Amino acid sequence: MKAEIITIGNELLETGHVDSNSAFIGERLTLLGASVTRATTVPDDPELIRKAIENGIAEADVVVVTGGLGPTADDRTRQAIARVLGKKLVLDEAVLATVRAHFERRGLPMPESNLSQAMVPEGARALENRAGTAPGLLLEHEKTLVFVLPGVPVEMKAMLENYVGPYLEGRGLKRLTAERLLRTTGVPESVLSQRIGGIAKRLARIDLAYLPRVTGVDIRITGRGDTLKKANVAAESAQERLANELGDCVYARGEESLEQVVGYLLVMKDKTVSVAESCTAGRLGWTLTKTPGSSDYFVGGMIAYSNELKKRLLGVKAGILKEHGAVSAETARAMALGVKTKTRSGYGIGVTGIAGPGGGSDERPVGLVYIAVSGIRGEKVREFRFAGGRDSVREQACQAALDVLRRVLLNLPGAPDVP
Amino acid sequence: MKAEIITIGNELLETGHVDSNSAFIGERLTLLGASVTRATTVPDDPELIRKAIENGIAEADVVVVTGGLGPTADDRTRQAIARVLGKKLVLDEAVLATVRAHFERRGLPMPESNLSQAMVPEGARALENRAGTAPGLLLEHEKTLVFVLPGVPVEMKAMLENYVGPYLEGRGLKRLTAERLLRTTGVPESVLSQRIGGIAKRLARIDLAYLPRVTGVDIRITGRGDTLKKANVAAESAQERLANELGDCVYARGEESLEQVVGYLLVMKDKTVSVAESCTAGRLGWTLTKTPGSSDYFVGGMIAYSNELKKRLLGVKAGILKEHGAVSAETARAMALGVKTKTRSGYGIGVTGIAGPGGGSDERPVGLVYIAVSGIRGEKVREFRFAGGRDSVREQACQAALDVLRRVLLNLPGAPDVP
Repeated sequence: MKAEIITIGNELLETGHVDSNSAFIGERLTLLGASVTRATTVPDDPELIRKAIENGIAEADVVVVTGGLGPTADDRTRQAIARVLGKKLVLDEAVLATVRAHFERRGLPMPESNLSQAMVPEGARALENRAGTAPGLLLEHEKTLVFVLPGVPVEMKAMLENYVGPYLEGRGLKRLTAERLLRTTGVPESVLSQRIGGIAKRLARIDLAYLPRVTGVDIRITGRGDTLKKANVAAESAQERLANELGDCVYARGEESLEQVVGYLLVMKDKTVSVAESCTAGRLGWTLTKTPGSSDYFVGGMIAYSNELKKRLLGVKAGILKEHGAVSAETARAMALGVKTKTRSGYGIGVTGIAGPGGGSDERPVGLVYIAVSGIRGEKVREFRFAGGRDSVREQACQAALDVLRRVLLNLPGAPDVP
Repeated sequence: MKAEIITIGNELLETGHVDSNSAFIGERLTLLGASVTRATTVPDDPELIRKAIENGIAEADVVVVTGGLGPTADDRTRQAIARVLGKKLVLDEAVLATVRAHFERRGLPMPESNLSQAMVPEGARALENRAGTAPGLLLEHEKTLVFVLPGVPVEMKAMLENYVGPYLEGRGLKRLTAERLLRTTGVPESVLSQRIGGIAKRLARIDLAYLPRVTGVDIRITGRGDTLKKANVAAESAQERLANELGDCVYARGEESLEQVVGYLLVMKDKTVSVAESCTAGRLGWTLTKTPGSSDYFVGGMIAYSNELKKRLLGVKAGILKEHGAVSAETARAMALGVKTKTRSGYGIGVTGIAGPGGGSDERPVGLVYIAVSGIRGEKVREFRFAGGRDSVREQACQAALDVLRRVLLNLPGAPDVP
């Protein structure tokens, strides 16, 4: 079963207003077993709406349209649909009563403009909208089902669950795919694909997608089968196989973030962590505390942006800064040890680097970052060279710092220690 | 000039991953004077990509395509484009050298799969990508310009600015609208619109859009005219008028962020600032250092997540914590004074609050935040009650802290001080 999504609204194309409906509807339809072949966004222009719906009906078995059902002059979906079907708009008394009741409940008279919301193409079924005034529509045209839903996300979502899901399930659409995730950090997409691309190709009933982010690459594994169970088994065994092949760059086999994984490991070991941040300037602390309850293992730390504070707050010796510089393995090590000691935490993380755009040199270019973790068995220090702009370097440094801590907590080798 | 946008990627249709590229590109193209008539999203399927590009070329004068330029097997845009144009893919030596150099800088060998990124349809111009390995493409086909950009937002945005903008401007696309911005914080959208809605309606040739964010509301003013000059005059005078009406909740009359404004004021006064963060746990430091060169005025500070560290690092007296609690005006004041003293900065900011989801009570609910600024004339403390989830409360607290500092620096009254 092929599905298409059409979203309508000038704001989506002109003002930077991001369309989140398409992604939501696409995911739901995929989970229902449909194959989503296209999502189209058009402005509030009757002719462009008409063309989009015509194209959708020509290609797909199900078309879900959102937006343009409001009471104002720029809401033109109803008319466009009626024209595609060659039908007239007629007043639906039941819908009118519902719209009127919506206003009465709030003690308001119904504005005349809302009358338009009770106009329905002949032969279409109106779908009740319990969260707003714009009813949805269900039409069937040349074997294609067309659902028209309001664009307000909360209304759209409720109606998708209440009408589209049950209707498609009732038509015997089964979910024949299952998904699994592998989250990795520190290894570029191309290297990951070199390592597992060959194996993945030989796995039956498996699709692989690489989702690169600044902080790492997620690998989505989709298993297919004639039953949901078979699809799950395919996805599950592929996940196992690929995770083993990839080894310790995989930090999660599900949706967990790296900071959640690290938090979990700290709780397991009953240890706390503190941070000494230079170039990341607080992002590491902020990230570690995204998880509710993180006060169980995160105590705090220092943002030592200036050299003066590296000495005063963290006890980094002036000689180290002078001899090796603020961006050096030695300084990172002294920062990590310093924050661990001053805060009496189990682990201390030190991050120092050159985020740019200024401050780089041939020897110490923008993107050079040293990360140290001070723990029970002394300090681990690693050197990184990140590409990208200031924000990107700092985000990568933060993720890498969490990963160095993960490796220490799990006793994983990781990249060679900087001497 | 008609423009279309095509975004490519299974994840956009199947996994709930929201496509933010279309909105961004649509807004830029609109500002450049183009009329965006459609945005289409298709999965990584060569046939569906080909069809989408064909449809785009048939309808529009400019087509901007993003995604599917990576080095892995699911990146199929290059082949699809070549097929639409009936061209062969040929190796571009200059692109290959750039991709290779990208890996060399990081001290890595180039994986073989990245070779595919140097394959370019005959007759296409490769567009350099300074932030990643995937080069973009520029092609011309039957009078339609096709730009192909990487899907990673930061890379796409840079290339849109560097190539698409100048190219379209060079083609004489005229812009008969002019935009101005007013950035506000601390006042809800409904109150802003109550204050200026009436005036805005009476302004000729002006459209107003309220863009609410967690951290405040931006007001976009669009002026229209038969000449660009008239549009600019209309927008400019409306901006002036509305800014005067709104008063000191307006922190910027352009794109500047609140942290840039604060940084500018600190530089003007030749003062430094430090932070003592509890619930925001580093976000304030991170935000203040987003601006390159922020080391001129930001020295660092403490993340005092635990009470123990509030005492040990910041010198908050045990009696204050015991009598008033960690989330109190007194503690915020002591934190601000403590960090200013310990770091010897000109100003110290203290932030303490309940971010949730746990930890709230009837008396001190989730969202309660105290913010203090310690400066030359003693401390200012303000109490806030933010709505929303954990992340939202912390983001609002960070923005409010910057705004309290702005008000201190500008000698603005602001909300009453907590005694």
